[in-house]
Amino acid sequence: MELEGRIRRFQERIKGIYDAALLTPSTNFFYLSGLAPVATLERPFILLIPSEGEPCILAPALYSLELKDAWIKNVILWKDEEDPFKKLADMFGQVPRKTGKILVEDTMPAGFLLSIEKNMEYEFEPLGQVIKEFRIRKSEEELRYLKKAAEIVDKVFYALVAEGLEGRTEVEVAKKIGDLIYEYGGGGISFEPIVASGPNGANPHYMPGRRVIKRGDVVILDYGAKYRGYCSDITRTVVIGKATEEIRGVYEIVKNAQENAFLKSSNGVKARDIDMAARDYITSHGYGEYFTHRTGHGLGLDVHEPPFITANNDETIEDGMVFTIEPGIYLPNKFGIRIEDDVAIIDGKGVRLTTADRELMEVR
Amino acid sequence: MELEGRIRRFQERIKGIYDAALLTPSTNFFYLSGLAPVATLERPFILLIPSEGEPCILAPALYSLELKDAWIKNVILWKDEEDPFKKLADMFGQVPRKTGKILVEDTMPAGFLLSIEKNMEYEFEPLGQVIKEFRIRKSEEELRYLKKAAEIVDKVFYALVAEGLEGRTEVEVAKKIGDLIYEYGGGGISFEPIVASGPNGANPHYMPGRRVIKRGDVVILDYGAKYRGYCSDITRTVVIGKATEEIRGVYEIVKNAQENAFLKSSNGVKARDIDMAARDYITSHGYGEYFTHRTGHGLGLDVHEPPFITANNDETIEDGMVFTIEPGIYLPNKFGIRIEDDVAIIDGKGVRLTTADRELMEVR
Repeated sequence: MELEGRIRRFQERIKGIYDAALLTPSTNFFYLSGLAPVATLERPFILLIPSEGEPCILAPALYSLELKDAWIKNVILWKDEEDPFKKLADMFGQVPRKTGKILVEDTMPAGFLLSIEKNMEYEFEPLGQVIKEFRIRKSEEELRYLKKAAEIVDKVFYALVAEGLEGRTEVEVAKKIGDLIYEYGGGGISFEPIVASGPNGANPHYMPGRRVIKRGDVVILDYGAKYRGYCSDITRTVVIGKATEEIRGVYEIVKNAQENAFLKSSNGVKARDIDMAARDYITSHGYGEYFTHRTGHGLGLDVHEPPFITANNDETIEDGMVFTIEPGIYLPNKFGIRIEDDVAIIDGKGVRLTTADRELMEVR
Repeated sequence: MELEGRIRRFQERIKGIYDAALLTPSTNFFYLSGLAPVATLERPFILLIPSEGEPCILAPALYSLELKDAWIKNVILWKDEEDPFKKLADMFGQVPRKTGKILVEDTMPAGFLLSIEKNMEYEFEPLGQVIKEFRIRKSEEELRYLKKAAEIVDKVFYALVAEGLEGRTEVEVAKKIGDLIYEYGGGGISFEPIVASGPNGANPHYMPGRRVIKRGDVVILDYGAKYRGYCSDITRTVVIGKATEEIRGVYEIVKNAQENAFLKSSNGVKARDIDMAARDYITSHGYGEYFTHRTGHGLGLDVHEPPFITANNDETIEDGMVFTIEPGIYLPNKFGIRIEDDVAIIDGKGVRLTTADRELMEVR
């Protein structure tokens, strides 16, 4: 079974370095166990993976139903009148103490970690750096889900432009994107859709507002879908009505920069080489100072995860890695243009998972 | 200014006990600063409140625009190539060391806390228990927002029953609830709406599924709106078509139990007295074992916060506290019934903020 294999490989990796890992519900929890319990601050739900032997779950008694069909059968329930962290410390009576070190889920609430530190004499380190090595290369099954998540956002884009955007507010369009993702079989959005029109597009972190999209606007559409937990992330930039010469010119530069970075994407290059392929092109065309963010980020169960495609990331890109390529140019008080695809490295080469039309579209 | 006053009172409270508090974006961060920056695992955004002197923000340079209009002017930016936790430790050069203790936001990611612990020789304790004393009693302004959030969910209920539920799936109704909340001026949902029909209603933690609501079903509708960050939370249970005698009987018991707990709600009683007012009534009518959860929880910036209305909470209820009263009876494989209102203690007495009809409704 794939999940059991994942935990075994993880145990092999940490044996002799850490005595165990403690996870709260998170994408790492899901990656290793296939379970996605509801996480609350009130009631800790913890997966304990010792470096050897069987994984074990400490769960609130209230949520025992959620574990009815779980493949991890080693479950200890705690009731509201009990202290779950004392119970966790007791569970460590069964875990051989060899290194005195435990990995903890990076997103675990600090309040939990403080209680664990109080009850257990161990040294704690973040799990993220270790689990990253596993998650950064996707299995064939994971690639299938990522591809499916990408297909959904392609369809959403065509549906949006067919409908037209003029006269609608940014928030209306953002909401429509969420509806369409659901309609095309997505399990949800992978982040709040960005719809940035006219001058709002010049802020790469803009959140949709009440502005009504009007003729002449450049509109950035940046959104993503989830499929079986795996995320896609696409950006397309369209013009309402006719594009000016300036818009056409900037669009071509972004499109070519994105293509350059894509062509660079292959097994064995460094992440920063991909970033620079886009950045150098934009800089050589005089817009370097208007490309104010990294070229991309990894995609998987998280919408932002390693590898990060930045100017100073030395990591080597390998088969099975999946990341975005999303250069942009942002002209203050005028407009912004960004084009983003999801790219997987398969058999040594980059393959676009998102394939919606990248030519400049003039839409209603 | 209200926010500045809040921070000053908080500083008064911790002086001599803690040297400072460290907050990441959260409802506590918002409560003390009025700011709600985007929280990411990648880029720590930290509010440092020393026990004396000016509060200070450590923010990613990328998000500097978000602080343009902030009333806290003491802002230190960190760039992607810098280590924010080293920078944070440097900032503590300005904080007089008196107690060697620092409060940390409970929801801060453990990964951040581990980095902070590595860089700073302090003892860390959870902020929650201290800030709770402030947040548990609402100001007049907060009560206004809570009242408004409650009005929105009342309106949503009437719109839903006017439309009818028969023939729609639970998820469709849940989605409709979200749309209506937005339509009536809510800033969003305070949690994913629960729509549990027929036998699904017997699981108090059920999430909406693909089941089609049909004639004869008992349907639990449990949802909440946010208004200026403040949460409401309402439950009404309706019958599609005609209610059987059994349904009518159980409904009356839940309704009376809820009323009993409401009448008990006043300045000076213990939280557990309110819980027992509902629980004893249900038990005396033979359904004690089918009321499987607490009677209620506090409401504010979080949808679950103190005071918790449980059988063993000794806390005294006081003016300005706001909480839910939501007893229920869950009959396995048959149906569930729950009635929930939001109650504020004002001038010594309980006042219902949600006021939608509590009589049994037979709807389409």
